[in-house]
Amino acid sequence: MNYCGFQRQKNGLSVQQVLEETLTEIFSEKITLHASGRTDAGVHARSQVCSFKISLKSNFDDIELFNLARRVNSMLPPPIAVRDFEVAEDGFNARYAVVAKTYVYRCYVSKFRSPLRDSYMLQIYEMPNVDAMRDAAKMLIGKHDFTSFCNVQTDKEDKVRTIHELEIKYDGDEIIFKICGNGFLRNMVRIIVGTLLDVGNGKILVSDVDKILKSKDRNMAGKTVDAKGLILWEVEY
Amino acid sequence: MNYCGFQRQKNGLSVQQVLEETLTEIFSEKITLHASGRTDAGVHARSQVCSFKISLKSNFDDIELFNLARRVNSMLPPPIAVRDFEVAEDGFNARYAVVAKTYVYRCYVSKFRSPLRDSYMLQIYEMPNVDAMRDAAKMLIGKHDFTSFCNVQTDKEDKVRTIHELEIKYDGDEIIFKICGNGFLRNMVRIIVGTLLDVGNGKILVSDVDKILKSKDRNMAGKTVDAKGLILWEVEY
Repeated sequence: MNYCGFQRQKNGLSVQQVLEETLTEIFSEKITLHASGRTDAGVHARSQVCSFKISLKSNFDDIELFNLARRVNSMLPPPIAVRDFEVAEDGFNARYAVVAKTYVYRCYVSKFRSPLRDSYMLQIYEMPNVDAMRDAAKMLIGKHDFTSFCNVQTDKEDKVRTIHELEIKYDGDEIIFKICGNGFLRNMVRIIVGTLLDVGNGKILVSDVDKILKSKDRNMAGKTVDAKGLILWEVEY
Repeated sequence: MNYCGFQRQKNGLSVQQVLEETLTEIFSEKITLHASGRTDAGVHARSQVCSFKISLKSNFDDIELFNLARRVNSMLPPPIAVRDFEVAEDGFNARYAVVAKTYVYRCYVSKFRSPLRDSYMLQIYEMPNVDAMRDAAKMLIGKHDFTSFCNVQTDKEDKVRTIHELEIKYDGDEIIFKICGNGFLRNMVRIIVGTLLDVGNGKILVSDVDKILKSKDRNMAGKTVDAKGLILWEVEY
């Protein structure tokens, strides 16, 4: 099953709709989720966080929460699972209370498609220059206007975000980007990875990355890499 | 797409059938594959090796072989891919020339299903005792009669095999078994992993593993773990 992304949409089944319908059935009252963020179609999430209110009951002990998760998971389709339920403080909203988010983007280097990895990693054909990518990544760390790294179709006015960490690891034929920041614009992680991969294969110079940032022009940065390599890894509150 | 395993069968589409039909189309002559082994339905392969004869042509240079792989891959469905073509010596048969094979079996430890890993790793609920599993694994290394670790439905008379290596690693919440031997009986790797996991969770004592081997009784060993965690990792000639 391919969902149209996390957020409810008119034309397509979203993860949010599946979760809300399941919880609505369980609690016998209409449940509306507030999520840490809207992942696009094809993006995976290891740890999306959602909050919701119920009128029914306000106290749950650990065993009740564990059984609730078991029951919800038994009703959810294979691509969706709940890891944990917790009782939050009054007024907690998983969307607005986010302090930092971490995304992981994974690639494998191979001339030929690897069926075991191709649904959740990007195939790249040649090993890029990881040292150059790391030098370029350093220029993106910190507080910047990320207009050049944002899809032009966005409803966000303020494009200033802070990247706390941007790590690039490689393990055999796999390259893993890990990026932590206080918030991310639309497609921002995928455009950053696309730009760094262009640095790694020589299409963009390390010294150009600063110019790309300053240009505030989406056309200057690299392409938006495929959603399938991206995982919402961790959300901090 | 779920295949009925590698080997051609009357009731179901096999990986062999898909590959043979594709190669038959490309070479315009009937191609029959000989494979290093028959993986069961649900088992993955990172490096199955197959041999076949063609009458058309006997010499291919590297560029022709690369282009052949590209063309074949463009015709194969997403779950199947060719990594490489090579010209073999006259009389080479990928089934009979095998010297050693390595399988990998992967588990993740979690109370709840992990959708990102659940199609190719076994979910286990509690962290097993890895030290005990390693002690038990040592007893299986070497030349033994593996009747106790073989599906009773088998056409093999001789159940003696040699395990060269049986390594158990853990990385965070993942446990990886790597097993190398001169040959494997039907379900042998999956029954070995099932038995070792029972050692890890205390159902079987380390000292019992030797008794299980000597009993030559399939009922003494642990259960056959799910195919989805198993990968044919490497084949040596």
